[in-house]
Amino acid sequence: MRFTSEHRLDDGVLEREFTLGEIPGTLWTPESAAPVPLILTAHNNGLPKGDSRLVARARLSAAAGYAVASIDARGCGDRPRSPDEERARADFRRAMQAGAPVDEVFESFIGPLVENAVPDWQTTLDALVELPEIGGPVGYSGWTALGIRLAVAEPRISVAGFFAGGYVPHAQREEARQVTVPLLLLLQWDDEGNPRQRALDLFDAFGSTEKTLHANLGGHLGTPWFEREDGDRFFGRHLK
Amino acid sequence: MRFTSEHRLDDGVLEREFTLGEIPGTLWTPESAAPVPLILTAHNNGLPKGDSRLVARARLSAAAGYAVASIDARGCGDRPRSPDEERARADFRRAMQAGAPVDEVFESFIGPLVENAVPDWQTTLDALVELPEIGGPVGYSGWTALGIRLAVAEPRISVAGFFAGGYVPHAQREEARQVTVPLLLLLQWDDEGNPRQRALDLFDAFGSTEKTLHANLGGHLGTPWFEREDGDRFFGRHLK
Repeated sequence: MRFTSEHRLDDGVLEREFTLGEIPGTLWTPESAAPVPLILTAHNNGLPKGDSRLVARARLSAAAGYAVASIDARGCGDRPRSPDEERARADFRRAMQAGAPVDEVFESFIGPLVENAVPDWQTTLDALVELPEIGGPVGYSGWTALGIRLAVAEPRISVAGFFAGGYVPHAQREEARQVTVPLLLLLQWDDEGNPRQRALDLFDAFGSTEKTLHANLGGHLGTPWFEREDGDRFFGRHLK
Repeated sequence: MRFTSEHRLDDGVLEREFTLGEIPGTLWTPESAAPVPLILTAHNNGLPKGDSRLVARARLSAAAGYAVASIDARGCGDRPRSPDEERARADFRRAMQAGAPVDEVFESFIGPLVENAVPDWQTTLDALVELPEIGGPVGYSGWTALGIRLAVAEPRISVAGFFAGGYVPHAQREEARQVTVPLLLLLQWDDEGNPRQRALDLFDAFGSTEKTLHANLGGHLGTPWFEREDGDRFFGRHLK
């Protein structure tokens, strides 16, 4: 793991870019003498780790006392893509914009993206937990489909917060019942891009004995500010 | 309003019984030099204001800085009942215990209970807001059906937290769209006595532009402890 840049924010949070082989990542850590728990965070559908909403949330969670890390896993964010991957991505965007049925194209685009992302996340986790500034349990926050796959594949993930959940590949809908960590599913009630009933069915399917659903009126980008605080408190109950 | 007894709890909360004409009530107030906001609270289906779960929640909310009041409205709690009211209540209990369809008997029992309770709650609110220890906006917490009726009938209610919501009389399901105050609906995902889909439909129907659903795994009595804190924070955003 090689840090390539660092930037100290006004609230003391240290924001560092790193590379790990071909994997580019960002790590946010608070000013803290003691090691802090780690939250891995990813944006839905493999959007870049530099997305402003992800960065804003990560910085606030770091200020609240967590180490937060995000990467562009293989095929995600700004990573180079194969012609097949580019084609699947273009098909998906076209179908979404046309309001056409997206299930099939979604499956062929997001399915492999999730599968291929997991090894990169595990490699990253291996490296992160070796850092002296990181210690304690590990949480996951964000992209639902990747989070399900990671929570099933990776016993170090001990708590998970998921966003949306209307579109999740078939394989992850199936393995949702194998997710048993405490979880919070955050849902926008009128999210145009995430069918509500599918998200509710997914919440029902999770195998966790401790699971909470938060739903708020409004579209995909309308999550109210207090849900970020609720998220921190949720992670606080399990990571601190 | 006549206070008939008072009791100072260990955390400084003052618990007072009162009567207002035929209405018996309890008022919990924190130790505070300044007037505090008021939360009216009622237990689902007109259960007594002395119910231990209601009392426990009221005491904690008072300790968190609210005046909290509950009454046994007409036909509710330990108030005397007419033979017709006793019959409706017995029919309801029998149907619930037998696992029989309860819609019709529920309607004939709870429908009039809600309608008849509202004048008593309004009379109580008139008296409470005159007290020097109470000031600021008014919230409602608890029994969904009564809360809908009160929120529609009573402009002084400026925020509402509802519990369950699977069984709500037809009239209140209809007027849910007239409820426009910020609201939090708290739902137990496997509540045997509250059909989940009806509660979700009710959440969808509310006319409020700011509404939040919290759902947790488990049965009617399984609400996790952190939801009480979440409720206090919800009221805090709107009452303080």
